[in-house]
Amino acid sequence: MSILITNATVLPCTEDMPVVDKGWVHVEGEVIKAVGVGEAPAIVGAEIVDAGGDVVMSGMVNPHCHMAMTLFRGLGEDVDDRLYRYILPLERKFVRPEAVRAGTALAALELIEGGVTTVADMYYFETEVARVVANAGIRGVLGQTIADFDPPDHKSVDEGFALTEQLVAEFAGHDRVIPSIAPHAPYSTGMTTMERIARWADDHPDVPVQMHLAESDAEMAWAEKTHGMRPIEVVEKAGLLRRGLICAHCLHVDETDIERMAHAKVCVAHNARSNGKAGRGIAPVEAMRKAGIPVGISTDGAMSGNTLDLFSQFAPVSMFQKLLGHSRKPMASVDVVRMATRDGAKVLGLDAKVGSLEPGKQADLIRVSLASPRQQPVYDIYSTLVFATLPTDVCDVMVGGDWLMRGREVLSLERKKVLRDALQVAHSFKAEMARIDAAG
Amino acid sequence: MSILITNATVLPCTEDMPVVDKGWVHVEGEVIKAVGVGEAPAIVGAEIVDAGGDVVMSGMVNPHCHMAMTLFRGLGEDVDDRLYRYILPLERKFVRPEAVRAGTALAALELIEGGVTTVADMYYFETEVARVVANAGIRGVLGQTIADFDPPDHKSVDEGFALTEQLVAEFAGHDRVIPSIAPHAPYSTGMTTMERIARWADDHPDVPVQMHLAESDAEMAWAEKTHGMRPIEVVEKAGLLRRGLICAHCLHVDETDIERMAHAKVCVAHNARSNGKAGRGIAPVEAMRKAGIPVGISTDGAMSGNTLDLFSQFAPVSMFQKLLGHSRKPMASVDVVRMATRDGAKVLGLDAKVGSLEPGKQADLIRVSLASPRQQPVYDIYSTLVFATLPTDVCDVMVGGDWLMRGREVLSLERKKVLRDALQVAHSFKAEMARIDAAG
Repeated sequence: MSILITNATVLPCTEDMPVVDKGWVHVEGEVIKAVGVGEAPAIVGAEIVDAGGDVVMSGMVNPHCHMAMTLFRGLGEDVDDRLYRYILPLERKFVRPEAVRAGTALAALELIEGGVTTVADMYYFETEVARVVANAGIRGVLGQTIADFDPPDHKSVDEGFALTEQLVAEFAGHDRVIPSIAPHAPYSTGMTTMERIARWADDHPDVPVQMHLAESDAEMAWAEKTHGMRPIEVVEKAGLLRRGLICAHCLHVDETDIERMAHAKVCVAHNARSNGKAGRGIAPVEAMRKAGIPVGISTDGAMSGNTLDLFSQFAPVSMFQKLLGHSRKPMASVDVVRMATRDGAKVLGLDAKVGSLEPGKQADLIRVSLASPRQQPVYDIYSTLVFATLPTDVCDVMVGGDWLMRGREVLSLERKKVLRDALQVAHSFKAEMARIDAAG
Repeated sequence: MSILITNATVLPCTEDMPVVDKGWVHVEGEVIKAVGVGEAPAIVGAEIVDAGGDVVMSGMVNPHCHMAMTLFRGLGEDVDDRLYRYILPLERKFVRPEAVRAGTALAALELIEGGVTTVADMYYFETEVARVVANAGIRGVLGQTIADFDPPDHKSVDEGFALTEQLVAEFAGHDRVIPSIAPHAPYSTGMTTMERIARWADDHPDVPVQMHLAESDAEMAWAEKTHGMRPIEVVEKAGLLRRGLICAHCLHVDETDIERMAHAKVCVAHNARSNGKAGRGIAPVEAMRKAGIPVGISTDGAMSGNTLDLFSQFAPVSMFQKLLGHSRKPMASVDVVRMATRDGAKVLGLDAKVGSLEPGKQADLIRVSLASPRQQPVYDIYSTLVFATLPTDVCDVMVGGDWLMRGREVLSLERKKVLRDALQVAHSFKAEMARIDAAG
């Protein structure tokens, strides 16, 4: 199968982030064969797709998500104590394989519609997540969560490891799903279990480790009280601060932490909207990037950040760094798009495979329209993408040479069924919330 | 003409911000005749519009914009010194009536597509702006700018007043365009001229006054150096801190300033994205609201904030206050929508006429779809609107009983011509920028 996309404004998202005003992309099977400038060459047998001047760029990478939590999107958001009043009881009662599948499918639909081609996830019943993701056709680094707070899918750490082993066994060698292990966070996993995960990871060098880290004041207080340390040091002591660790959040990191992180070669998933909505603060993204730490843009789960596309994160990501620097200068638009593509791929250890349009890499690409009055005129295409483009401007999405969306119609999921299944779970949630409210 | 909108989730945006899960709205001529719950009554001769469960709510109010500056959207954003290198030379050379008309028409198209039914504007050649706005059918409080920095349309303050008089003469009594006078800012208008504007405003009690105020560090320094005062005090001394003054920005206001502002009964237009993008800081919106100051949500011009719809502002508006308060609690979603509708109308002194769906008020309303996977499930409709809804979810827009958009097709402007005219000006800009760059 050979596809030639012509008449495109190509953003290959290679090192220098060039803009190819009139270019073409040739896809052969699952890989990029060539990217060129000007008139496309004649290629015998290739399907021609005229992009009509639209942007064709690398698919986006969302390196921290809890897909199934779309089920909780916006639930009780302005209710006092929503976590203990609603969320935890609902999770305990309803988070079962079926609900996880429903929420994950809804997330996959939204991710594809928003131009995300690779996602990292950590949740419960992760093998179910992996099956849905594999079926949807996007790429996923999917982490079985291990935690000590009696989570919905394991009563003990041993059970957590068993679930992880099951995930790894089922998806080892899968071309799009990469099994991963996810200690929930330092305070919710604990030193002993983190040490055990570190040893397990030594024996499974191909399984990425992802975790929440340095996210909240409460975590800082826990680390100080329990270990007399900062969270980064706690994780280092546990042996987990290692090459490729995917650290979500990292709000509370000082210069010394950043040095340690850079030295250990960990990566960071930055969740601007989630952090901002919680009033937690602004992660020092520019400082981490300057230290050489790969930082990607992620959404967190829909309970925290509401939407799963990266366009919705772009303005906050940029504005937050400018506010932190009290200047227009930090975080140029080109760097925001860089983070959403090639740097996100680095965060997930997938930069040899995705994150840019280069010969030999997987054909993960999206087509984005800039035709809306809201986007015009275009002087700097990166500024247009960051500050004036919406997930609804994504027209087509390809992963590994397969079209997952054409003309905004998702091809790999049954939209109606996905919505129906998710709304059925939401209906149960609403009934339980009414019961809770009635009980006072 | 009688229109009955049925089967709607009606958000009337009245004082208590109720949600009418299944309701109807009856429009008679240019006004709301009735809003009801449940099955709609039979109304002889009424056109029936089945909203299919979509949200029908008050049209949104954007109380601070520079419409014509869509022409500069994203221009040279990450270029050092873009103001002196590009913007000022381009404004001086190209801001003429024709360009202002082209940029304003592009803005009107975007505003309508995004569900904004009332806009406040301050720019040059404001009579041209007013003609375009009147033609587009939206409501506008349109202010002729008066400034002392040799702006594109007046060489002297006398000429500035003459332009204002012309605007007032042409649009006095117009049903949608309200002429306004706009001293640019304290530092760019000066005490003598502000005093003269205050006297002029005494003689023209129906002409709203709008200005930039307490926006930047430089303005603070100017006020201190020139008058030994804070900007709010400077404006008070000039006699302009008065009932109904529309103050854009107000980032740098302390408790005493806020007391003065509340006592004087001024109003505030909050520009979250513009302020954030400039790295200027976060306006104390919750503090101003608690003091009883009406605060609306605005976009600033597209050079500063890039887009002109309010949905793009919602998440930043909420997140910024939560970051300021270091908590999830400040700025509940319902308050964000309140600010975008009824409070915005108060800011412009139009709350007797628009800002909510109530019998006797003007029929300014929008229909918004919540059908996207990105928006589902819906537990709290205000959270859905604030954190998961996009301007592209607006389907229909009505102002004063006239449909300006149906099924996302704007009816009052020729989309193709509007885009063509704006892009022609942008083409001149690009040529001039190339010339500037070639000159070094």
